[in-house]
Amino acid sequence: MSEFRFPSRVQKLRERLVKDELDALFVSNGENRRYISGFISSAGYLLITQTEAVICTDFRYTEQAAQQAPGWRVDRIGGKPEWLPKLVKEFGIKTLGFEADDMTVDSLERFKKAFSETDVDPDLKPTNGIGVDLRAYKDPEELTLLQRAIDIGDQAFEETRQLMKVGMTEKEAAWIFEKAVRERGAESISFDTIVAVGPNAARPHHSTGNTKLVEGQTIVFDCGARYQGYCSDLTRTIVLGKADAEIKRIYDIVLAAQLAAIDMARPGMTGEECDAIARKIIEEAGHENDFGHSLGHGLGLEVHENPGVGPNAKGKLENGMPFTIEPGIYIPGWGGVRIEDVVVLEDGRARVMSHAAKMEF
Amino acid sequence: MSEFRFPSRVQKLRERLVKDELDALFVSNGENRRYISGFISSAGYLLITQTEAVICTDFRYTEQAAQQAPGWRVDRIGGKPEWLPKLVKEFGIKTLGFEADDMTVDSLERFKKAFSETDVDPDLKPTNGIGVDLRAYKDPEELTLLQRAIDIGDQAFEETRQLMKVGMTEKEAAWIFEKAVRERGAESISFDTIVAVGPNAARPHHSTGNTKLVEGQTIVFDCGARYQGYCSDLTRTIVLGKADAEIKRIYDIVLAAQLAAIDMARPGMTGEECDAIARKIIEEAGHENDFGHSLGHGLGLEVHENPGVGPNAKGKLENGMPFTIEPGIYIPGWGGVRIEDVVVLEDGRARVMSHAAKMEF
Repeated sequence: MSEFRFPSRVQKLRERLVKDELDALFVSNGENRRYISGFISSAGYLLITQTEAVICTDFRYTEQAAQQAPGWRVDRIGGKPEWLPKLVKEFGIKTLGFEADDMTVDSLERFKKAFSETDVDPDLKPTNGIGVDLRAYKDPEELTLLQRAIDIGDQAFEETRQLMKVGMTEKEAAWIFEKAVRERGAESISFDTIVAVGPNAARPHHSTGNTKLVEGQTIVFDCGARYQGYCSDLTRTIVLGKADAEIKRIYDIVLAAQLAAIDMARPGMTGEECDAIARKIIEEAGHENDFGHSLGHGLGLEVHENPGVGPNAKGKLENGMPFTIEPGIYIPGWGGVRIEDVVVLEDGRARVMSHAAKMEF
Repeated sequence: MSEFRFPSRVQKLRERLVKDELDALFVSNGENRRYISGFISSAGYLLITQTEAVICTDFRYTEQAAQQAPGWRVDRIGGKPEWLPKLVKEFGIKTLGFEADDMTVDSLERFKKAFSETDVDPDLKPTNGIGVDLRAYKDPEELTLLQRAIDIGDQAFEETRQLMKVGMTEKEAAWIFEKAVRERGAESISFDTIVAVGPNAARPHHSTGNTKLVEGQTIVFDCGARYQGYCSDLTRTIVLGKADAEIKRIYDIVLAAQLAAIDMARPGMTGEECDAIARKIIEEAGHENDFGHSLGHGLGLEVHENPGVGPNAKGKLENGMPFTIEPGIYIPGWGGVRIEDVVVLEDGRARVMSHAAKMEF
């Protein structure tokens, strides 16, 4: 049998199974399936034991699964769930973990019913977050893909910024960005681009619309590219024409908070501690009520994944984890400022992966 | 209190609750949330009783929910699930349906735990398909949006076809289509465009790649636009240059099967019966093993939804239901032909909503 495409990912998962006292994990989540096996599709499951690794998918994808995931056995399955008891019996699985944070109540009932119609009766154990825990650490291949996604997003943003002008709508600016991303070889944008002008920028999750770009107000531009599955995420706040003193004042607070968090982030720190670095600066500047979201988040195959970086994020940040640092100040009726880079912890420090220029006044 | 934006949808859901003996339905599915309330977001729930209608969402979306969903009470919720027992108590709900085909095992456990920590103990009933059942019938507002999505997709395909030429890759052709869709005001394509050349066309779900378009082989182009949430779906099979006798022969069988199904589709027929009309023609032409997918599917807020139109689709097709009719013949190593239109049953017949020209030889 040929080697796995990602032998260390399979190995880490198997170590986790030992730790969690599971004979096998049944993977239903699409990103986890892709991450562990390399198989990219809209449907299918993995079943992994200490010695077996099987992709179960329908006729549409069996050929592709065999190509994308060397080392895996590929089983063709139909719509009825009786294949799962058969495999569990074949492998002698007594304790079977499933992804409770992905599997629907209905799917679980269907599999339970299939077991009940056989003499196969494993202990079905709900698991939560095994895939996202593993995925928080990025191996060198992943960091290369993530860097490429970031570079494409950064370049596309820079190109868009050159073309943005008064009178253009938010949607038009977002579309310029998206075309630039695609024409650089990304498969898509990594989330709906947020372009928020003036008072719209006071809402961190503004829905990009037909508001026209104007002079002298903040424009928050939050955007990303997806390259071979990996998602970048960048926010820049710009002003067309002249920025007034209030914009400069608030921008400088946010920038100071962002640079401090980048400078002081360390492996071993919790997400909460990292968040507090930036939050303290914003609070001490008198804007304690104006930063209503987390400092950041991990990113990879999903644009939001582990580690958490915000109040109540108790997990530790570690070497090999990329995440965003994106403080903001939002003032209803006036607007907002947010500045976001992706960093990765390496050799005890945060290395900045984003290279798009920041606004200067 | 103002009127609901979609009073008849709320009314139909309430009639269904009576029929299913539920005091309330707890909606977690995003498309169902949008359909019933008009509220469009990435997060939130609905709770509907015979007299109450509440949107539960986080701080990011409360303002937007109030704008998009007049008539609904909007409750701001946090990350902890204790708000659900409170509402269930407030409304005196004894029998609470939830969407078992959407809710994860983990979410249900979290809500169950929240109930167990109170004196509120409703009977939690798994439901399956209530939203998709309601959504199979489209009201006039929906058909208007669907027609607009279809028109955009059809026009974008026609534009793309003019620009397709030998040596262009599948991906390049797909990108021309996508740009044309977006520049006509659609928010996105409705699914990843399939462009499949020559032998690639033998796989109904070919993943669009870097194969170059060539003369004299079939090119299957399966594409759609999403307009205000509604998804179109169109397939045309074209040939650059001259089509040989074998292509013409197979194309004519598929076209005959498609036109027969359009002509003979009737309300009251099951999806299986409609499928059989086209399948019989393909089988009688000697291609009984070469049409390995369903004849069609409903479409709306999702590109695949009810009704089913294929072998084993026991549900009835009814007036007001749009669906696709898309027979195909696929021959490994040679290629494939598929022709797909959207139709809607009206006044006892299928009205064709797609207007893109079909290939003529």
